[in-house]
Amino acid sequence: MSLNEGIHSQKQHMDVGQRLRTIKHVVLILSGKGGVGKSSVTAQLALSLVQANFKVGVLDIDLCGPSIPRMLGLDGKKIHQASAGWVPVFADEEQRLACMSIGFLLPDKNSSVVWRGPKKNAMIKQFLTDVYWGELDFLLIDTPPGTSDEHLSVLEYLQEWSPDGAVLVTTPQGVSLSDVRKEYNFCMKVGLNVLGIIENMSGFQSNFVASILQECTNVFSTGGGEAMAKEFNINFLGKVPIDPSLTLFLDQAPQSGSSEKDSNNKSPDGQGSFEDMIRRYQECKLSSIFSDIIGKLTSSTSNGSV
Amino acid sequence: MSLNEGIHSQKQHMDVGQRLRTIKHVVLILSGKGGVGKSSVTAQLALSLVQANFKVGVLDIDLCGPSIPRMLGLDGKKIHQASAGWVPVFADEEQRLACMSIGFLLPDKNSSVVWRGPKKNAMIKQFLTDVYWGELDFLLIDTPPGTSDEHLSVLEYLQEWSPDGAVLVTTPQGVSLSDVRKEYNFCMKVGLNVLGIIENMSGFQSNFVASILQECTNVFSTGGGEAMAKEFNINFLGKVPIDPSLTLFLDQAPQSGSSEKDSNNKSPDGQGSFEDMIRRYQECKLSSIFSDIIGKLTSSTSNGSV
Repeated sequence: MSLNEGIHSQKQHMDVGQRLRTIKHVVLILSGKGGVGKSSVTAQLALSLVQANFKVGVLDIDLCGPSIPRMLGLDGKKIHQASAGWVPVFADEEQRLACMSIGFLLPDKNSSVVWRGPKKNAMIKQFLTDVYWGELDFLLIDTPPGTSDEHLSVLEYLQEWSPDGAVLVTTPQGVSLSDVRKEYNFCMKVGLNVLGIIENMSGFQSNFVASILQECTNVFSTGGGEAMAKEFNINFLGKVPIDPSLTLFLDQAPQSGSSEKDSNNKSPDGQGSFEDMIRRYQECKLSSIFSDIIGKLTSSTSNGSV
Repeated sequence: MSLNEGIHSQKQHMDVGQRLRTIKHVVLILSGKGGVGKSSVTAQLALSLVQANFKVGVLDIDLCGPSIPRMLGLDGKKIHQASAGWVPVFADEEQRLACMSIGFLLPDKNSSVVWRGPKKNAMIKQFLTDVYWGELDFLLIDTPPGTSDEHLSVLEYLQEWSPDGAVLVTTPQGVSLSDVRKEYNFCMKVGLNVLGIIENMSGFQSNFVASILQECTNVFSTGGGEAMAKEFNINFLGKVPIDPSLTLFLDQAPQSGSSEKDSNNKSPDGQGSFEDMIRRYQECKLSSIFSDIIGKLTSSTSNGSV
């Protein structure tokens, strides 16, 4: 289905509550500032939740800069229209990880979406009413930077359904912290529960490199997010260091290429399969950190457990 | 002047062309992705242009995450209403660097601006019609990430005046490059001249550190922006490495604090003055790189020179 078909599909809309009733928990991932690694955090939360045997959906509402398809190795996949609604792209045959992004509706990954607010709002509403997620334990909603139309719209549409809350992502530097304070104030203004803060790009994974990098300590500081969590009395979910093996992992995520039109994700030789991706992520040192993070996160979502 | 006063001031509006007729060149700084250092690039372009004896204005239209006041050491300054319009914040007594940002209208730096498109558009129009810049060689417009209301509005309002063009900022990594391609396509769509690409966070300033950082080569790669400039036949303005001394420089930028209500920027002991800031920037290794960049930039703006 193309972007135009998507926008103009006049299939019967369900209301948001009806559509999301098969989903146990909805968590928004927010950051005031761009480039703090919000999408990579969302992708890792999703992979870690799948590892912990949850069924997970990822809704990417960053309409101008969707990163989720690339992060989850799903670039070039397409969504389909079925009688029950838009079928999300599944990362695996068992449908443990479902994904919806405007990236799947664009003719190619370099296409720019140049839309003003009202058109973006309509698209987000369609994402919430038209996507057939099926049974999910968690729906993670990845948002664009800032506090504008996308954020207001998604919360307005989710209002009656009432999401579990937001995870705020920051880096340790002052500029990013100042922006995440804005995001915290935004959550307070709109009455959105803050589930916790993740401090991303917090120092280096390797102590060897970190110890050599005296010269870089000012670039790669650590602890700012944790201090902020204390200041606002918010749950601190964890520090995620810069880890070159994650970049490598993401760069090597299997991309199906724009020529592939179906969403059959099993490659013939098993290379680049979702199982392979999960296995490679487990080898990544950050996976144990995210395993702790989702432990805290799942205990802070509404029922304590799912 | 507060945000509400600003929005509701009903002083006589000039049209954009009238207001900007005292400005020789208008350059937009764009990046598809957030967090690539767009504001730090804008701040350094401004400082380098001032060093080269140009009169410079910086208009920050990132309404949800304004970074320019902090970057230029002007946090806590306020703008004033005069008969000729809104008086921007000057970094120095000689008024070589003028700055306008929503940050100067907020009650404090943690306040979040939660606005939908139309309100943002109105604010941007006021920035373009109400600010009394006086004579400027360059007006640099720092934009938020993405391609949405702010970008469409500023270009719509500038249409008749016709800005010189855009500088695209990217980092070398794939995700950022893919987003800057979107931004390039945006420029093509709206007919905005691309003055060049700057590759930010391109490797490390220190060769010593770089040579040790074998483990990090995947995080801190280099060359992606230059390759993209070749691909699209765009002027490549330069590679800007990660330089801890810049972070230090920005963190030490004199901040006047939110208690200071006037825009007298000379501190009594000369510490934290704009002269001091310029001097400290000259000591920063990146200043010579930016000096080259503005050489290329000024020769590519409309008349070849100003």
